[in-house]
Amino acid sequence: MIPFNKPYLTGKETHYIYDAVNAGKLSGNGKYTQRCQEFFKERYGFGKCLMTTSCTDALEMAAILINIEPGDEVIMPSFTFVSTANAFVLRGAKIVFADSRADHPGIDESSLESLITAKTKAIVPVHYAGVACDMDKIMDLAEKHNLFVIEDAAQAIDSYYTGKDGVRRALGSIGHLAAFSFHETKNIISGEGGMLAINDEQFEKRAEIIWEKGTNRSAFFRGETDKYGWVDVGSSFLPSELITAFLWAQLENLDNIQVKRKDIWHAYSDKLKNLSNISFPIVPDFSTNNAHMFYLVCENIDDRTNLIKYLRDNEILSVFHYLSLHKSPFFVEKHDGRELKNSDNFTDRLLRLPMFYELTDSDLDKITSLIQKFYSF
Amino acid sequence: MIPFNKPYLTGKETHYIYDAVNAGKLSGNGKYTQRCQEFFKERYGFGKCLMTTSCTDALEMAAILINIEPGDEVIMPSFTFVSTANAFVLRGAKIVFADSRADHPGIDESSLESLITAKTKAIVPVHYAGVACDMDKIMDLAEKHNLFVIEDAAQAIDSYYTGKDGVRRALGSIGHLAAFSFHETKNIISGEGGMLAINDEQFEKRAEIIWEKGTNRSAFFRGETDKYGWVDVGSSFLPSELITAFLWAQLENLDNIQVKRKDIWHAYSDKLKNLSNISFPIVPDFSTNNAHMFYLVCENIDDRTNLIKYLRDNEILSVFHYLSLHKSPFFVEKHDGRELKNSDNFTDRLLRLPMFYELTDSDLDKITSLIQKFYSF
Repeated sequence: MIPFNKPYLTGKETHYIYDAVNAGKLSGNGKYTQRCQEFFKERYGFGKCLMTTSCTDALEMAAILINIEPGDEVIMPSFTFVSTANAFVLRGAKIVFADSRADHPGIDESSLESLITAKTKAIVPVHYAGVACDMDKIMDLAEKHNLFVIEDAAQAIDSYYTGKDGVRRALGSIGHLAAFSFHETKNIISGEGGMLAINDEQFEKRAEIIWEKGTNRSAFFRGETDKYGWVDVGSSFLPSELITAFLWAQLENLDNIQVKRKDIWHAYSDKLKNLSNISFPIVPDFSTNNAHMFYLVCENIDDRTNLIKYLRDNEILSVFHYLSLHKSPFFVEKHDGRELKNSDNFTDRLLRLPMFYELTDSDLDKITSLIQKFYSF
Repeated sequence: MIPFNKPYLTGKETHYIYDAVNAGKLSGNGKYTQRCQEFFKERYGFGKCLMTTSCTDALEMAAILINIEPGDEVIMPSFTFVSTANAFVLRGAKIVFADSRADHPGIDESSLESLITAKTKAIVPVHYAGVACDMDKIMDLAEKHNLFVIEDAAQAIDSYYTGKDGVRRALGSIGHLAAFSFHETKNIISGEGGMLAINDEQFEKRAEIIWEKGTNRSAFFRGETDKYGWVDVGSSFLPSELITAFLWAQLENLDNIQVKRKDIWHAYSDKLKNLSNISFPIVPDFSTNNAHMFYLVCENIDDRTNLIKYLRDNEILSVFHYLSLHKSPFFVEKHDGRELKNSDNFTDRLLRLPMFYELTDSDLDKITSLIQKFYSF
């Protein structure tokens, strides 16, 4: 069976975990946590970085930081993971779901202004498959209406956006805040894990406090305050050093991982591009492709169901992805009734093919030949 | 320098982590997570157990499960860790702080009934130092006033309470819900980590959903539902298998760890009991002692400050503990003005001595001799 995903290990993960264990510091904010944070900041130009136990937790930190209160509205795509929404629902926000673009699952930037009201507090663009949303449009809108932008960059590590000023910026470095995931399905992994990038300086001090369970512990240990106590809300957002030590091995191999994944992505693209029955991922000129995912868009849900079955019968695991959140059991009664047809479209028709570092040329040949065969009937 | 704490490693931690890494399943709810959960359920008679990224997160799950809403009141001791309070503050609760007992930092059970109002939703007893609160009194009160009891059992693994029925029950198995910590300062550790024990069956199904980010993923994979989607609020409370694999090595050695810690605790007690200037931990007849902590209560704050300094000058790290939360910068303006003198007393006078598996007899002799010397001046 060719799995849909297989976590890639560089070989040094247990070495660094062993080092962390031997150093006798296994709780959060140790050597490896700080090393990872510095790496991201340096390489991608993020502001302050704080490692978290998950991308979900990074989004929750963001929701606390921008002071979401009951009644505040937050705009995000319906075609996203539940955590994008839950992080704000937990603070009492009303979620306003936007549609996806017709040509891409990312948020339809042109639909956003009509969704903004006096209660809107934030826009959460999701860089689906590591492909950038048009951040110039979103940041301009945010500035005009005094909104915060929180990039859900769960899938977007090592991908870039080039704006109208011609400057190439890393995804996650543009919004006021950005959340990343290192879940085992991502390009670089730590089993579970995430990070909050804090690009707007006004949030830096408070972010550290919220991260440290609402205490000024970090400032205390830096000698900036003489007492350490309860100063704010917060949670235990810090991951163990076991997690960040593991991640460190991945970061050392990031370039290598990215080269390999891009090769796989382009091989898929080359071997399937002749097919007229399916559409392919588009990558707008303003975005790079970090090869997080290779997906097809089938003609309709039956076609997709049949293809999934055909591939499974031939020992290949392909999977569909999100179900429009505005139609979920939790939200359907709360939704304002707008039709979000592109989101529903990707819900029904998008199909993800196996994508992982150790996918071999022969795996690729097998998968693409079978898809060719499926569409030749 | 004799540290205050040193994480103990059984030697098998990296072995099990290596096994988890090789199994290729590093995200949450894998083999080791399930193994740990079964262990706790079997050994301690807890209801359903769910591993979490921290005790803080377990408390947050509890607050969501009992549907805390703005205005609800939750009673807990002021002498506790910030997370006990923050977990409920994050859901909008009003915290009503109770005093400690005069003879112990645990909540003063006799003060509770006067704090209950029509808005009270829960009582959160904290089993300080692993010593039981009088759970019969608390459960009776909860039943009378229709309240939930959430045991903050962060320090209380492997400790027991014997009620008026003569039955010995594990701490964490008595309240409707209970939260444990496996932070590196605890008896058994995983760096960061925690667990929620769900003893009231009504919460079992929803707990699993909240744990899985508000989705019915677990039920879906058991074949109980044909769709997997967003059905509730939730977060990413699951720890990576890296964390639970590490913990598994500790659980295999739990008995050994506990014997050693109890030996150290009793050695401290024997070597210091002659001193009349300090008071010692009491362990009520209804409670066992899990040797989580050995503390002294000094005569006053100056005495304690001097003793800490004296020990530090002699290369021994002893530490004070919580600062009354009702007087914290975050809460002081929200407090109703009641004096909580026992809580303040322990804030000023309680001193924790080094306590860890690898503390040697000669360390113990050195520490206790110095304390004897300090009080002989």
